[in-house]
Parts: sequence; C-alpha cells; structure tokens
Amino acid sequence: MRRALRLADRAIGLSDPNPRVGCCLLDSAGQLIGEGFTQQAGGPHAEIMALRDARARGASTQGCTAVVTLEPCSHHGRTPPCADALVEAGVARVVIALPDPNPAVNGAGIARLRAAGVVVALAPADLAAAAHELNIGFISRMQRGRPFVRLKAAASADGVTALPNGQSQWITGPQARADGHAFRRRAGAILTGIGTVLADDPRLDVRDVETFLQPLRVIVDSQLRIAPQARVLAAPGTACLVHAGAPTRAELASIEQIALPASDGRVDLHALLARLAERGVNELHVEAGATLNGALLAAGLVDEILLYQAPLLLGQGLPIASLPALPDLAHAARWRRIDATPVGEDLRLRFRPA
Amino acid sequence: MRRALRLADRAIGLSDPNPRVGCCLLDSAGQLIGEGFTQQAGGPHAEIMALRDARARGASTQGCTAVVTLEPCSHHGRTPPCADALVEAGVARVVIALPDPNPAVNGAGIARLRAAGVVVALAPADLAAAAHELNIGFISRMQRGRPFVRLKAAASADGVTALPNGQSQWITGPQARADGHAFRRRAGAILTGIGTVLADDPRLDVRDVETFLQPLRVIVDSQLRIAPQARVLAAPGTACLVHAGAPTRAELASIEQIALPASDGRVDLHALLARLAERGVNELHVEAGATLNGALLAAGLVDEILLYQAPLLLGQGLPIASLPALPDLAHAARWRRIDATPVGEDLRLRFRPA
Repeated sequence: MRRALRLADRAIGLSDPNPRVGCCLLDSAGQLIGEGFTQQAGGPHAEIMALRDARARGASTQGCTAVVTLEPCSHHGRTPPCADALVEAGVARVVIALPDPNPAVNGAGIARLRAAGVVVALAPADLAAAAHELNIGFISRMQRGRPFVRLKAAASADGVTALPNGQSQWITGPQARADGHAFRRRAGAILTGIGTVLADDPRLDVRDVETFLQPLRVIVDSQLRIAPQARVLAAPGTACLVHAGAPTRAELASIEQIALPASDGRVDLHALLARLAERGVNELHVEAGATLNGALLAAGLVDEILLYQAPLLLGQGLPIASLPALPDLAHAARWRRIDATPVGEDLRLRFRPA
Repeated sequence: MRRALRLADRAIGLSDPNPRVGCCLLDSAGQLIGEGFTQQAGGPHAEIMALRDARARGASTQGCTAVVTLEPCSHHGRTPPCADALVEAGVARVVIALPDPNPAVNGAGIARLRAAGVVVALAPADLAAAAHELNIGFISRMQRGRPFVRLKAAASADGVTALPNGQSQWITGPQARADGHAFRRRAGAILTGIGTVLADDPRLDVRDVETFLQPLRVIVDSQLRIAPQARVLAAPGTACLVHAGAPTRAELASIEQIALPASDGRVDLHALLARLAERGVNELHVEAGATLNGALLAAGLVDEILLYQAPLLLGQGLPIASLPALPDLAHAARWRRIDATPVGEDLRLRFRPA
C-alpha cells in the first residue's frame, strides 16, 4: 500500500478534478506484476493503468491481488467502472485504503467486487489516513460541496507579511518558495484578492516545481479594478475574475468573470467556494492579503493555514489577516498545529481547526 | 562526560553567579567512585564535592580520572583552587569539556595540573558545545562584561502578544508557561519594563519549577512610576528599580534603585547590562513589552529570542517588539532558528543572531 500511495502522489498536478489514486497488482507470490496511477481527467484510472502495465509485462492477472488507495469506481463516468475491469481481469483480492467519498461510488465499488466473488480488505488506519490526506480536497468537494481551503502566508516570526512600504519579496527563502509552489501544484485553483494583484502583480502560477496542470487563478475583485495587463491574467493557465456585480469592462471581455454579490456589497465567499467545487476544484490554495484572508477566516472557510515563518522580527508592517478585535481570548478560534518542518532557513507551519 | 553534564544541570538555580559545573571521578577500571556539582556561591565547587563524595564512599582517589565540564579553577576565590585539590588527591588524569573563560583562570588551571604531572585531555566538540551552552551566561559575563540576554515572548502565530484590550493571559498553555519558568530559573535576573508592570502586574518569580535561588527582578522605570504595592516588588526574591535620574519617592525607599540616564532621557541599556554583569548576572531573562523589547533589539543587545507560539491567529493586538519601519528587507537583522520544539499545544522557538 505504501508503494500504491507513492504512485498516487504522482497524480498530483495531473488527475484533477479526479482523485489521486495509485494501484499495485501482486501475483500469488506477492511479486509486483503491474502498477499505475490516475491519469489526466478523461484518461484511465489507476486500476486500468495497472492492468495495462501487467499485460504489457506479459503477466497474468488471474488470481492476483490489487492494492489500491481508493475504492474502485462502480459507475460509468468518462471511463467504464474500474470494479468491473478488476473482475474481468480475474483479480481475486482487492485491498483498499479508503472508501470512495463520491456519493456515486461510496461502497458500491466494494459491493460490486464482493458480488463478483472478489475478497475485499481495508488497509490499516495509518494508511487510510495517508490516502485521506492525499485526496482531502476531493473528499471535501464530494462531502461538503466545497474545496478544501488552504490559506498560505509567508511571514516573519512576529507575523509581518510585508514592510510598511509594501515590500514582501522576499521574507522567506527560495526553499520555502519552492515548497509553496509544491502546495500550489496540489490545488485546482489559486485564490487571491485585487489588493495583492495591485500591490505585488504576482503571477501565481506553478513555476518552481514541475506540473502537468496549471491551477485556475481566481481573483476576487469586487469592483473589477484589475488592469488587463496584470500578470495574473497572462498564460500559462487561465484566470477568472470574481466580482460583486460590477459594471462590465470591454478590455476584460476575454477573461472569464463570475458575479457573486453578497448582501454587504462584497463577493459572497460561500457562493464562490460552491461555484469552484462545481468546476471541480478539490483544493483551493489562497495567497491573498490581510483583507481576503481575514474574510475567509472570519467566515470559518479556512481548512488549513500554511505558514512559512522566516527567522526575522520586523516589528511593523502588514499582518497575515485582518480580523475583528477580540473581546476575550476565550473567543479566539482554536487551531491545532499539524506540521512544523524546517524548510531552508524558514519554518513551515500548518494548522487545522482544533 | 554526559553524566558530568547532567550533574552540572543540577547547579542551575543554585550556583549563580558561579558557573554550572559537574564532576565525575572514575577509578582505573572506569568505575564511578565520586561525583558532584557546584554548590551555592561560596560553597564547594564540583571537583571538591566529587572528592568528598569519593571519600564518603571510602574510595581512594589515587590514580583516578576526573571528568569535569569546565576547567578546574587555579585561583583563590571564596574557595581554594580546585586544580590544587585534584593534584593533592592524587588524580592522574583530568578530562575537561571546556576551558574556563574566566580571565583569572583561562588555561592556568590546565597548566597547573600539567605542571603537577596530571594528564589533561579535552572532550570532543559536541560535549564542549553542551558545556558551553550550560554556561553561556557565565561565558558572556566573563568575555563581554555583560549577561547573555534572552528575550522571552508568548504570542499567537501572527505575532500578537496581547489583545487590543491588553488581555494576554493566557495566549499560551500551562506547559509553555512552566517551560518559560524553567528558563527564568536559569537567569540571574529577570528584566521587565514599567509598561508591563502597570498593565499586567506580574510577579516574575520562579513558581512553576523548583529553584533554590530566585532571580533578581529588574524593572526599567525611567520616571519611577511604579506603585509600591506592585507584585513584582514583593517577596520571594528581591527587586531593583532602574530609572533615568527620576526624583526619589519616599514610599520606594526600601527598594534598591539604580540611576542610569542616557542622552535620550531614557535608561542607558548598555550601562544597565554592564551593571548587572558586575552584580554577577550571567543570564538575563527579559519578559517585557514591545517598547523595552524593541529598544533591546534595536540596540543589538539580544542574544536569544525565546518565543512560545500558540496555534492561534489573533489579527490585531500588541506586537512582540516595537521596531522602526524598515526601508528594505535587506536591512532586517538576521536570526537563525536553533530550536523548534512542541510544548503542549504551543511551539517553542529559539533564535540567535545569524
């Protein structure tokens, strides 16, 4: 299963909006006879790739064991059901790390296998957790109808993300930036706000690590203030502007635009997440300024804070998030730290709701 | 030597202003025959305690090996030289982790031992580093004429030490507070500012861990605004007020006061550190607000930042340090992270100048 999980990792930046799945086929002696992982959307799933691999090696799949990180699908999507393909290939046993959270599958794949006489076993909890982590965005989209939202920030040890004059390049080092691009690559979309676009003119594409897909870039720009030449609108990949019902601008006609006004005249962030889920965004990577970060946090829409912390004290400058003044510490949202890893000279911290 | 270092640890909170030293005596078969660590000032040093221990056990010290974390002293202080005592006891070999940085010793102890025919060896670099760390304050005082300054703060992940309304109790959890008391215990003095005293009325004594000594509590109070009933002035331990030439106040007559005016009408912090070193303060533990923290940082007087970071984002409130706005990130003081240890739900971070 660890090998299957490593295979599934290779679907990051490739298989979206489909889940990242890896599959190994083992003969009765436990020898690996085939392996594969989910290809780009519309292409074969991991199980099919592993069966093809076994055939290409000239190995018989009769009576073999399939180890797969996610329950094989049982429905006809853009490809026929993988459960059927495993049965037809004569697979005798299937070990699964995680039931598929997709309501169209959810146990039906296992049932289909068992009905065909295939023995189905579930992997231990630690491997199930690793499989869950790999597809945390897909699971969020299936179960909650919204992406898993990861808010990324780079700050000094005293929480400053930019000097008072706006300078933020670079608080953290090159290793932290490359690590941040690896997290961007996981995402179906990258979200930022017009303030960040106007201040930093970022590209927000995936550059420092290899990727097949470029995440959609989503800019919250309530009043459509963006300049057509903003780098975030340029290739590679595509961009989408989200406004609160602003008047159209001819020079932005070639850019996709979504109007999602909320009662406060701003963009409805809940509606935005639902819309992104509909578009197949599993993980949403937020790289924004204090205003949008604060709005997402205050709305309880952040599932993970990814904070690169530089070994600096800057004293004053821009904060990670603008939040209303708390009357009492007891009212503070509680997080738990799930990661504290040195990355170059910086420290990568990740927090999830406690 | 590791055992000797563990013994030396037991002198923390006990031996100040003397260095923390541990000593083991081994017979020719490598069996432990005596051990000891530095007692309170004026009491016996580690070597004497170990020799006494061997005698109490009825063991002969003729031809034995002494393993000691710091070079034995060669001068008459409040106690006779330890180098002489080792020679008289017939010790054949001495292994030393670190030469004594005291200008009155500095190699003279080793020379004295060698002149008497004792074989002297130095421990490997990693053990020397551990011995150095243990006495980093003593070494600072001997070599620089000022204490090793450790600035402690407790903050959220976005650098907030107190809510806008001043509430700071408690941002971090009980384990972090106890860990902070263990660092207080290392210190010869604890430094705070009048702002913290007026806002929080802290005690600043060592409570959450056992200690023999209470650090001196030093309050920077340029204009002598403190109330006589401030808890920081009360027992246990003693307090000292540092002002910038303020008029005397009769109700503070029982409290030691030091006038150290600087050209800007504030307290001269360099002079303060020199004065504290003269009083035998090896490690100075700073628990202050943004003003005094900022002044110490801006003056380059901070040797270590000890930051307990809670898994919270607070958005707004009081900062760790008030520092002047930087024109460019290239001007930021560089630190290196030497510690990132989970303590309860919080993270203990330590930084030293890069």
